[in-house]
Amino acid sequence: MNSFGRIFRVSIFGESHGPEIGVVLDGVQPGIELSEQDFEADIARRRSGARGTTPRHEADIPHIVSGVFNGRTTGAPLTVIFKNDDTHSSDYSQFMDVPRPGHADLTGMIKFAEYNDPRGGGHFSGRLTLPVVAAGVVAKKILAETVSGETDGQVMFVDEARLIEVGGEKDCEKWPALLETVMSEGDSVGGVVECRVDGLPAGLGEPFFDSVESLISHAVFAIPGVRGIEFGDGFAASRMKGSEHNDPFDVVDGEAVVPSRNGAGGVNGGISNGNPIVFRVAFKPTSSIRKAQRTWDFGKREMTELVVPGRHDACFALRTPVIVEAVAAIVLADLIDIA
Amino acid sequence: MNSFGRIFRVSIFGESHGPEIGVVLDGVQPGIELSEQDFEADIARRRSGARGTTPRHEADIPHIVSGVFNGRTTGAPLTVIFKNDDTHSSDYSQFMDVPRPGHADLTGMIKFAEYNDPRGGGHFSGRLTLPVVAAGVVAKKILAETVSGETDGQVMFVDEARLIEVGGEKDCEKWPALLETVMSEGDSVGGVVECRVDGLPAGLGEPFFDSVESLISHAVFAIPGVRGIEFGDGFAASRMKGSEHNDPFDVVDGEAVVPSRNGAGGVNGGISNGNPIVFRVAFKPTSSIRKAQRTWDFGKREMTELVVPGRHDACFALRTPVIVEAVAAIVLADLIDIA
Amino acid sequence: MNSFGRIFRVSIFGESHGPEIGVVLDGVQPGIELSEQDFEADIARRRSGARGTTPRHEADIPHIVSGVFNGRTTGAPLTVIFKNDDTHSSDYSQFMDVPRPGHADLTGMIKFAEYNDPRGGGHFSGRLTLPVVAAGVVAKKILAETVSGETDGQVMFVDEARLIEVGGEKDCEKWPALLETVMSEGDSVGGVVECRVDGLPAGLGEPFFDSVESLISHAVFAIPGVRGIEFGDGFAASRMKGSEHNDPFDVVDGEAVVPSRNGAGGVNGGISNGNPIVFRVAFKPTSSIRKAQRTWDFGKREMTELVVPGRHDACFALRTPVIVEAVAAIVLADLIDIA
Amino acid sequence: MNSFGRIFRVSIFGESHGPEIGVVLDGVQPGIELSEQDFEADIARRRSGARGTTPRHEADIPHIVSGVFNGRTTGAPLTVIFKNDDTHSSDYSQFMDVPRPGHADLTGMIKFAEYNDPRGGGHFSGRLTLPVVAAGVVAKKILAETVSGETDGQVMFVDEARLIEVGGEKDCEKWPALLETVMSEGDSVGGVVECRVDGLPAGLGEPFFDSVESLISHAVFAIPGVRGIEFGDGFAASRMKGSEHNDPFDVVDGEAVVPSRNGAGGVNGGISNGNPIVFRVAFKPTSSIRKAQRTWDFGKREMTELVVPGRHDACFALRTPVIVEAVAAIVLADLIDIA
Repeated sequence: MNSFGRIFRVSIFGESHGPEIGVVLDGVQPGIELSEQDFEADIARRRSGARGTTPRHEADIPHIVSGVFNGRTTGAPLTVIFKNDDTHSSDYSQFMDVPRPGHADLTGMIKFAEYNDPRGGGHFSGRLTLPVVAAGVVAKKILAETVSGETDGQVMFVDEARLIEVGGEKDCEKWPALLETVMSEGDSVGGVVECRVDGLPAGLGEPFFDSVESLISHAVFAIPGVRGIEFGDGFAASRMKGSEHNDPFDVVDGEAVVPSRNGAGGVNGGISNGNPIVFRVAFKPTSSIRKAQRTWDFGKREMTELVVPGRHDACFALRTPVIVEAVAAIVLADLIDIA
Repeated sequence: MNSFGRIFRVSIFGESHGPEIGVVLDGVQPGIELSEQDFEADIARRRSGARGTTPRHEADIPHIVSGVFNGRTTGAPLTVIFKNDDTHSSDYSQFMDVPRPGHADLTGMIKFAEYNDPRGGGHFSGRLTLPVVAAGVVAKKILAETVSGETDGQVMFVDEARLIEVGGEKDCEKWPALLETVMSEGDSVGGVVECRVDGLPAGLGEPFFDSVESLISHAVFAIPGVRGIEFGDGFAASRMKGSEHNDPFDVVDGEAVVPSRNGAGGVNGGISNGNPIVFRVAFKPTSSIRKAQRTWDFGKREMTELVVPGRHDACFALRTPVIVEAVAAIVLADLIDIA
Repeated sequence: MNSFGRIFRVSIFGESHGPEIGVVLDGVQPGIELSEQDFEADIARRRSGARGTTPRHEADIPHIVSGVFNGRTTGAPLTVIFKNDDTHSSDYSQFMDVPRPGHADLTGMIKFAEYNDPRGGGHFSGRLTLPVVAAGVVAKKILAETVSGETDGQVMFVDEARLIEVGGEKDCEKWPALLETVMSEGDSVGGVVECRVDGLPAGLGEPFFDSVESLISHAVFAIPGVRGIEFGDGFAASRMKGSEHNDPFDVVDGEAVVPSRNGAGGVNGGISNGNPIVFRVAFKPTSSIRKAQRTWDFGKREMTELVVPGRHDACFALRTPVIVEAVAAIVLADLIDIA
Repeated sequence: MNSFGRIFRVSIFGESHGPEIGVVLDGVQPGIELSEQDFEADIARRRSGARGTTPRHEADIPHIVSGVFNGRTTGAPLTVIFKNDDTHSSDYSQFMDVPRPGHADLTGMIKFAEYNDPRGGGHFSGRLTLPVVAAGVVAKKILAETVSGETDGQVMFVDEARLIEVGGEKDCEKWPALLETVMSEGDSVGGVVECRVDGLPAGLGEPFFDSVESLISHAVFAIPGVRGIEFGDGFAASRMKGSEHNDPFDVVDGEAVVPSRNGAGGVNGGISNGNPIVFRVAFKPTSSIRKAQRTWDFGKREMTELVVPGRHDACFALRTPVIVEAVAAIVLADLIDIA
């Protein structure tokens, strides 16, 4: 299923090299100010261009084709589309026969047989994260409107996703050199993104199947290339003692009782506790590399060596903080609608 | 929402100290052999009793009250209930005023106000993992039936969840001593469970929102006390190069093309690739400890020190492998129904 | 799927001759007063006993086994069960071979093969409308609480379902004689129930797939034996002119603008308009009759004549107003939660 | 929610006078032949032009923008859009102040406040039935493919919806004169559509909430202007005796046991029984008429008389058989995917 959410519901569609990609957002409350300019900042954060990202240039211009009238959401399904311009489909025809290691070429063939669209990864492409980012922009507006009543696009509380590790290196000053080396080798690296959501009310989420962590992790693993997620102390919690990991309570302003240390990442029993929601996401290294890799040629029915041609990110994780933030916002906008 | 799944749908209900807890399973195919004895092995795996687990003893006897006729599933909703016997509600009355650090006492109060059932954690209790385990037993039978056509309860391919770390220690021979120390300190430790699912067909799952990882992580974070999940190389993938993490393909028996190294944990592009599905889950240390912890007394409106009385696991992670396995089976039984 | 609803979600389970039947209600707001006595009035309305109804007597005693603490809902899943006592399973064994005309014996066999529980209709039994009525009681409390803030069980606005036709006869004074005749013939009759829901806010429902009529009709056709549903002028609207059927607007108290004539049954464009919601439901005659009917004997592989033994309603429609009311309340409680 | 379906899932979007309208179809199996030409026949059936229908002319050209590659479905979300060309928005601006009787102007305002798009009914417009028809075309292909394995677009079994009554008149030869009279009066009439689905397997649907009738009625009431639906004998069943309405069984070809008379409309206990599925849908008369109607002027805050200007169908029911057929196909394609 390519939809997600109960009240605020996101459905994405499109392929890397089809005419357009887009997203339909159902359950958007009426009256939220929204223009095509509102998408620019987040789209720019996702766009390639920096060292370590692919030189493919898409205009990435959002077109709102439904759900907005006179500059405000109407309450009807809101659709945003993006035209695909800069496609070189001929680059990819060979992957119908020779699946790229680390990609979905093989599983796409297994699931959809010869009907799978192989051009640029088809529907599996990371390009589909563009409509996800667009959904995130609207989700952040829903959150802003619901929490603070502000509709002018000022969104403060889901804007704190950032890369904290590249190729295992935490010191961001060393990343440029590390990326240069990797690129010169025709190789790639991964990274870790931390997302922190502040300013949300306590009480979101539900015990068990709709826990805040369940829903966020569900949405995060929809992003291509994610290998892990952890909340608060995360995997380190498994190595701590209860007396270390437990959060003794503090009282803020003589009023709000909150866990002091936030080792739980803002969630207890599936429900937000008033602390910031904090989680980290591990991204794998880019699968497309210039180094030769062993694979199977279905046409010739023999093992072969593949060098993936074309334009690729040496570290696509550089482009993912805004995507992680978007899916967090999508989940939380839905939860705040239900609460 | 306390339900999960599209075709095979699991709904749990009950509270730790209510009369009974249970699970309703919708979408179970007819004709699967099922008796109350079939639940015994997995219930025993979850039961407390070993060093490091609580001495609370429940009979944990499953009662099938709908959906089975003449020893086989009928296709109608299948309900399994468990009576609660061994409850000491008086132990818990104080937590309505004094929330326990690390527990859902506070978030339960925030979400459900004074109406939250505080007895033994109410609906938030780890006791609710018992019906989840029961659901897992049925899910494994659905998988066995669908994959191999066997209905006699012989289930091979989701039975490989095990604890690989306790309190940060990987060597299981050192765990008993470690647990003794922790217990003597009135403290607790966490652990890491690895789950491996073998024998499933390739092609399960979907790109984006219903990826295998999305659905498994959704279900895993429904288990109380989970702090993180990772697939295949997991967080380590973010520190590897593409040439290290990518899986070159192998050909097995001149037929099946499979990734050789399984760094992806059995999933590419959200879809199972024929390799075993492998993931690890980090559990926090038990929140209830005998050491004093700082908290707020809502009755007296002052900070206080709490020593949690009663019977608790020093390491509840010891009891979780069968629960992790159950939620994996629940997810996969639903996916195999859709495929 | 045996569940219904997005936020207020109803799941029913059980078979006519199994140990118990019941319902799990998810998404019930905390703090609503609820006791087992609250179910009595509606259960009595559904109970058999009047002329024209079966003499089968069940105690029909509701047991709340989860979701209520200290007399109020907790916000956790609320489960109500009913024990089955008065079962004569031997009556039904023959229908595994000889399907009864008008019943689900044949379709049950087709769908669930020999695993279908044939005892008393199994899961298809009209007895499953008992947990539906229980769900309706809670739904009406949710509506009362949400609309008026009253939690004492005083529910006014979904309590207006009544039989308006029996066997084609609108004059209720003639029903007793009509029923006597039908019973003396060993035959049965149907009826029409009208449901009217007053006091709800305008603005519930959504255009297209979640229109008020879509959701109510969905739930109404879940009641066994329904053959049709119509809103407002209903089928007669198709024979009216626009100038007759359209509702000119009135202004009530110089404030509320409402359609004057309610030919639309309280809904325009899928959304409640402030008028009472009015719909009629057609019930077929009871399928079990003492007259001989032609059917197929799967055992002997030959056509045969069947006289259905046992205890039956000559007009089960007599018992349905409270069930129609219950499903309307279930739908509206969900819609009011979303609004 | 503007989506419908569990596996084959339909989401519509757009407004009457926005740039485009469309539909996203999730869960379409790969390999089905599909071209833009395949939509032509059904779109033509819906198009206005005959006497009694509006002279508004839209090109109604479908554009497949995702989910099809090399002339076959890929398994990814399939999106079809239609550009809106022939819009006269100025016609409608007044209805923001003066709601038209019988329309959703008032309920749209109540639900979405001043943010509702009033141009041509906005998202409530009957124009949104165009993407529904497009979804129906794909649904019929899924049914054809699944039932018969044919992928060439030859669809036999959901193509039997037709108008059986116009303005209460069953004799279709009298319809032209009836429509002329109505048009000359500036008035409108309704009609009844009968839909018959043949060739489907027995066993589709489920007891209770996912009965075939529940799902079909849910989808049918999503069509604007529906006032009632009935299956088989329908409302007449409530006036029949059990011995008249019950279907004695016949044996066809010494094999298939089927109800002989089809009074149940092809469904028993919620499950298809092998007979054709037969239902009738009552449509109201067109709401927009040239006769003056009483309404409220929100601008001037006074009662007023409204004459609805513009181009309208005197009997929009003339255009609905293909829409009824489409929603039936949508429901059945989903059910056949689940079976």
